[in-house]
Amino acid sequence: MIKIGFLGPKGTFSHEALEKYTAENASNYIACEYSSFPDILQAIQNGDIQEGIVPIENSLEGAVNATMDTLAFDVDLKIKSEWVLAVKANILAKKGTELKDIKYILSHPQPLGQCRKYLSANFPSAEIISVYSTAGAAQEVVEGQGDRAAIGSLAAAEVYGLEILARDIQDNNNNFTRFVVISKEDTTRTGNDKTSIVFSTEDKPGSLYKILDIFSLWDINMSRIESRPAKNQLGRYIFFIDISGHKDDQDLKDALTMVKRKSSFYKFLGSYPVYAPDRG
Amino acid sequence: MIKIGFLGPKGTFSHEALEKYTAENASNYIACEYSSFPDILQAIQNGDIQEGIVPIENSLEGAVNATMDTLAFDVDLKIKSEWVLAVKANILAKKGTELKDIKYILSHPQPLGQCRKYLSANFPSAEIISVYSTAGAAQEVVEGQGDRAAIGSLAAAEVYGLEILARDIQDNNNNFTRFVVISKEDTTRTGNDKTSIVFSTEDKPGSLYKILDIFSLWDINMSRIESRPAKNQLGRYIFFIDISGHKDDQDLKDALTMVKRKSSFYKFLGSYPVYAPDRG
Repeated sequence: MIKIGFLGPKGTFSHEALEKYTAENASNYIACEYSSFPDILQAIQNGDIQEGIVPIENSLEGAVNATMDTLAFDVDLKIKSEWVLAVKANILAKKGTELKDIKYILSHPQPLGQCRKYLSANFPSAEIISVYSTAGAAQEVVEGQGDRAAIGSLAAAEVYGLEILARDIQDNNNNFTRFVVISKEDTTRTGNDKTSIVFSTEDKPGSLYKILDIFSLWDINMSRIESRPAKNQLGRYIFFIDISGHKDDQDLKDALTMVKRKSSFYKFLGSYPVYAPDRG
Repeated sequence: MIKIGFLGPKGTFSHEALEKYTAENASNYIACEYSSFPDILQAIQNGDIQEGIVPIENSLEGAVNATMDTLAFDVDLKIKSEWVLAVKANILAKKGTELKDIKYILSHPQPLGQCRKYLSANFPSAEIISVYSTAGAAQEVVEGQGDRAAIGSLAAAEVYGLEILARDIQDNNNNFTRFVVISKEDTTRTGNDKTSIVFSTEDKPGSLYKILDIFSLWDINMSRIESRPAKNQLGRYIFFIDISGHKDDQDLKDALTMVKRKSSFYKFLGSYPVYAPDRG
């Protein structure tokens, strides 16, 4: 029986991602709650758990820095698979509450921001209250009077026994999060894989361009480039790059050998398949 | 008399940046407090104020997304100058409080994280409390018993009448923030300038590489590349690029003409000088 880490408490969007992943891939597992993404990754590194599921990018908010920085600097782990999941926000309230009763709407600032237009059109006079997490908002709704609602996931409704008064209220339907399942091991080639690496270039003009030149030379498609501070000096960066293919493909293997030689720091983050169940 | 916007309340690190900028550049101005970076930029766009000072990047935390996204998507403004300032954290308490009296330490999660090692070495038994802003922490220290301290800026100590019990307690001395002064107008060439643009590439493999190829062709040094979600689709990005030179330099002018033609979205964000008073 494997242990899989996720960001708790139960009812977070990470918990929902865990359930989607395990429904197809792990019938026999123990879900372990952690309070931050770095804690999950450290627990895999230490061997306390075998896998973890963490967000790495959102289509509106961008990179999840805590995940990226920990993968680059603090642990030596691999991405096993990627799960692209739609972020859907819902209005949750205690049983018996009607929409017209709602005077207070609670959630984390991020979902509140993502439902701003809906809230001002439908609840112009409600007070909007920012709290630490969507699960915390659900908890406050459970404990409070019947005049408050939370914005949260369907998993939160289930865990806290709340009723779903309105579904899919987010302003932008292009709201997807890429979750990655992390473990210590490499993943075998599926034939439809993506590879992630992180590196820093030599401190010379044009050195990033020279690295991208290598991918161009081998006709390797780059789907993402993300820079993060190297943290040792302002203006020095590390680059995360996603490219098509598996590390055991000959062209990609040759390209990565060159990238490794041309970079001052290099880490392989995995070759893995991508699943997008919510995209149909 | 010009009006300059900054992130309030008084005593924030943004307020400190405003004071450094105005000490050298504007003796006669009105400082206007705003509660978010997008609000400052919108106020310049609307003509309520003439300038604003906002952070755009930190050497440990990376890009300031709220600033970058607003500049790219919501306003049409220019960077007038850049100020690289050292971020220094200090222990602030009411007059008469001694280090040994301190049982509670309050601040925003970011400075608390940046002083983690100092705090666990020097205050192993103090309770660490996260609050919404460093200025809010200072306010709570003013109102509380003499058993609490805030972590904040020197400006906060001055504004709230607090004593500085310890200076420069941050764990990493490579902590710098790039602030930019924003206005509606272009800035004339100083001979020592940097240019910022933002663009998105055509949705074809290798299109980012082709843009960087243009800079390589013209021998133009790129000091920063930062991607942000295009927000219309997962996997589509806009790119912020900083390059050496001024838009009126002939080579740079020619290169930008080509970039504009090769990109599906393009915005010029300014050619401007850089000041780094804290780097000596």
